[in-house]
Amino acid sequence: MAAAALLSNGGVKTPATGRYAAVYSEVQNSRLDHPLPLPSVLKSPFKVVDGPPSSAAGNPDEIAKLFPSLFGQPSATLVPGDSSSVQELKIGVVLSGGQAPGGHNVISGIYDYLQSHCKGSTLYGFRGGPAGIMKCKYVVLTSDYIYPYRNQGGFDMICSGRDKIETPEQFKQAEETAIKLDLDGLVVIGGDDSNTNACLLAENFRSKNLKTRVIGCPKTIDGDLKCKEVPTSFGFDTACKIYSEMIGNVMIDARSTGKYYHFVRLMGRAASHITLECALQTHPNITLIGEEVAAKKETLKNVTDYIADVICKRAELGYNYGVILIPEGLVDFIPEMKLVLGKGNLPPSLFILFDLLPLAIQDQLLLERDPHGNVQVAKIETEKMLIQMVETELEVRKEGGSYKGQFKGQSHFFGYEGRCGLPSNFDSTYCYALGYAAGALLQSGKTGLISSVGNLAAPVAEWTVGGTALTSLMDVERRHGKFKPVIKKAMVELEGAPFKKFVSMREEWALKNRYLNPGPIQFVGPESNAVNHTLLLELGAQV
Amino acid sequence: MAAAALLSNGGVKTPATGRYAAVYSEVQNSRLDHPLPLPSVLKSPFKVVDGPPSSAAGNPDEIAKLFPSLFGQPSATLVPGDSSSVQELKIGVVLSGGQAPGGHNVISGIYDYLQSHCKGSTLYGFRGGPAGIMKCKYVVLTSDYIYPYRNQGGFDMICSGRDKIETPEQFKQAEETAIKLDLDGLVVIGGDDSNTNACLLAENFRSKNLKTRVIGCPKTIDGDLKCKEVPTSFGFDTACKIYSEMIGNVMIDARSTGKYYHFVRLMGRAASHITLECALQTHPNITLIGEEVAAKKETLKNVTDYIADVICKRAELGYNYGVILIPEGLVDFIPEMKLVLGKGNLPPSLFILFDLLPLAIQDQLLLERDPHGNVQVAKIETEKMLIQMVETELEVRKEGGSYKGQFKGQSHFFGYEGRCGLPSNFDSTYCYALGYAAGALLQSGKTGLISSVGNLAAPVAEWTVGGTALTSLMDVERRHGKFKPVIKKAMVELEGAPFKKFVSMREEWALKNRYLNPGPIQFVGPESNAVNHTLLLELGAQV
Repeated sequence: MAAAALLSNGGVKTPATGRYAAVYSEVQNSRLDHPLPLPSVLKSPFKVVDGPPSSAAGNPDEIAKLFPSLFGQPSATLVPGDSSSVQELKIGVVLSGGQAPGGHNVISGIYDYLQSHCKGSTLYGFRGGPAGIMKCKYVVLTSDYIYPYRNQGGFDMICSGRDKIETPEQFKQAEETAIKLDLDGLVVIGGDDSNTNACLLAENFRSKNLKTRVIGCPKTIDGDLKCKEVPTSFGFDTACKIYSEMIGNVMIDARSTGKYYHFVRLMGRAASHITLECALQTHPNITLIGEEVAAKKETLKNVTDYIADVICKRAELGYNYGVILIPEGLVDFIPEMKLVLGKGNLPPSLFILFDLLPLAIQDQLLLERDPHGNVQVAKIETEKMLIQMVETELEVRKEGGSYKGQFKGQSHFFGYEGRCGLPSNFDSTYCYALGYAAGALLQSGKTGLISSVGNLAAPVAEWTVGGTALTSLMDVERRHGKFKPVIKKAMVELEGAPFKKFVSMREEWALKNRYLNPGPIQFVGPESNAVNHTLLLELGAQV
Repeated sequence: MAAAALLSNGGVKTPATGRYAAVYSEVQNSRLDHPLPLPSVLKSPFKVVDGPPSSAAGNPDEIAKLFPSLFGQPSATLVPGDSSSVQELKIGVVLSGGQAPGGHNVISGIYDYLQSHCKGSTLYGFRGGPAGIMKCKYVVLTSDYIYPYRNQGGFDMICSGRDKIETPEQFKQAEETAIKLDLDGLVVIGGDDSNTNACLLAENFRSKNLKTRVIGCPKTIDGDLKCKEVPTSFGFDTACKIYSEMIGNVMIDARSTGKYYHFVRLMGRAASHITLECALQTHPNITLIGEEVAAKKETLKNVTDYIADVICKRAELGYNYGVILIPEGLVDFIPEMKLVLGKGNLPPSLFILFDLLPLAIQDQLLLERDPHGNVQVAKIETEKMLIQMVETELEVRKEGGSYKGQFKGQSHFFGYEGRCGLPSNFDSTYCYALGYAAGALLQSGKTGLISSVGNLAAPVAEWTVGGTALTSLMDVERRHGKFKPVIKKAMVELEGAPFKKFVSMREEWALKNRYLNPGPIQFVGPESNAVNHTLLLELGAQV
């Protein structure tokens, strides 16, 4: 490897040591050499076997109309067998949407697959997300270019973006790029929207008789892009471990100080997977799960009362402290708040609710709207709102004599610090396999599939590898009178093993203090190869 | 060790494994067995050698009057020699003030010293801080009781408190406890105020002819309790590593997304040591150091302009993102803000400044006052204030044509999550030595000293051990017409090596992106035994 300036941020590798001293910390450097084992099936000759025809997650007739070329295509599984013929490929890769730890390893996996199976291939990295495809803004990814990003967090190798390829003009631009670069394939690394977009692109290329095939990869720390064949999205494992370290520290602080209730809001947008996983890792006194709040049609008053009830019971036991986890999207799960958050004017029936809200939150509701008139949920400081509402409720109870404790709230928001951490060993390995699989699927001529790596509770050698028809994950939503295909977000299942495990424990956690402090992500030593609880429980393992 | 319920939170040790599965994570468990090496001088027979008579940090005449029994006493150094005679001791220990990682190890060190040098001794842990001394609320610390807290964060073994022993009645209560428990000694683990209090207690016991001796230990994550003999306070190393991990992650996020300026406020109260250390570990684009702002007599407008200047220059280079570190105490360093923050009514000259402040901050300034009428600086969201002020300034520049970039601010406060983390290897070992030294000083009949472990840039074996006269760290302040002894807070020295190193780098960091992501605290592997930059630089090492 040359001693050239390799990194986008100006780092120069020291040939003698193989280290990037100027721009990388010791831990970053040490991660470069962390080994990335492959599932056995990817290490020997393999062939791709098709399963039965697929359908859709809902409204198959509409999905069939929207994807005439792709609908019904089978999922693919890699099994030992004759390797397909070696051919040079031209492949593009794009990162779409918010960061998730491990994205760089997907790219490393694609690259290494091409190197070992299709010598002479070219990998183009589109810069800045889907806009890079439309503008044909790319970099040719070489071994030297990719190596410094191995097992590193962030998306800074080629950066990401939130543009979508939607209009006929935009599809046309994408076609022009595919033709100009003579692309055999494109890997779209993204969340539910980006993978829907990837499938539309696959359909479009196929319908135009372009050779460019499209494979998606499941990315989001939120953990809400998953199904039977795609057991988890990458980044979730790392983000939860980083948040849980911080929560564990705050718990020790709470117990040591004995006088604060820490209200911790956690990133995770629509679904509450991150909050649930962090609860399973740390055992907080109170955990709000948005999906449960919605299912029980709870009001803001119900939620406030639930928190206040636990605080009162704890006060009787002599505990005037605790830790409360709150999912970022909570307010979106409360039916009455949904109305407050919606477009247009407030229905008169909700004036009273609105008046109950702390002033600062009223401001946020009135001011923090996006260009479409929607409230930007991520900007609402739900943790501060709840502190004030609980405080008010406890004052009432104090006057009534039913509460004799002391209440002091401390608010936290853990978000950005988890999105770009150094990927855990699990995410590092999982992403590398996802990328490798994407390469194999493209070489086998597949399109419109999402890279699928399964059997994740087993040792890496036994992981299964294949691709799932993106159309099989889809349903339609009616928008502006038209059906739009969507991959349904996987919400927390109230009948699922992770939630049930949590329910079986939460009363004990509420009143007894069963705090667990997982400590920093461990790359070496105990637990360094442990997988998150959600995934293990969903896979039927005992945790 | 018995299989009894050992932990305050109800954990039971599994005899077969020696683990605390129900209440401890794997990492917490693994830390229990992390070895704690001792400086060589503590491993062989040693004697205590006195240095020359000491003076005071300022106003020695007044300090001499305040401490007639203790003033002028020499510092003590442990050197190889005949061990002092074995005697049973009764020692008390108390944790005072806010948490800092490593407090439990100080207690472990005292205990292990007594076990190995004064068999049959008793160690009392006063519960809930100095109030535990006054109320004689204690627990007898046994091997079984202490072991589960070895190398663990927090102060939950005996908890802490912020009470002071100040009035004649309170001193009387402390005397009663000392007599009742027949205490030979007391170790006060605390910050500057608590160590001042420890010295007053030592003086009081001595003047009353009680045998109870008092030794202090330097504790505070803020890093502002230090001097030549006490090179650092414990907890600073761990807290900075935890904050730097988070900052490093946010940096990768900033670079990947390319559209946010992250304003990160860091705990650390009066002094900016934590912010400076985190800057040295991570290389942010902008770092505000309170002591520099004060020395240059900068206004809030100056600070805003400085940030806006860097943002404008970066925009010209195509960077519309960055990371800015802000010390918690910043507003206290800005002369005009000091007036706004002070008691009483706002001078008319400052109405204009006040009007410039964002509304939410005006509210905080008006409402968040403590019972003494002072603004609670920790509650002012300086990071949000600066975002709004910078935004306004950049809008003006945009209209004037001197700024063409895009500005979006994201605010963060990193505080509680760092105070109670699992102590770094350095803090674990340093604290154990501090406790061990405190035991040795008490056995040697010393009082009014602060446990001092030095030569910290060298291997642990070569660390020096002794005690420094607390009166030598003191000056007086006039309060309510009376002289009060105080240990002066050690502020960031603008002529010191850490600040100079920072100054030599900050222009490069501002415009080029030299972000370093230190990654999670590493207990094993690369950098796991590295010491923080501030300490190494202050000790003259090259970093």
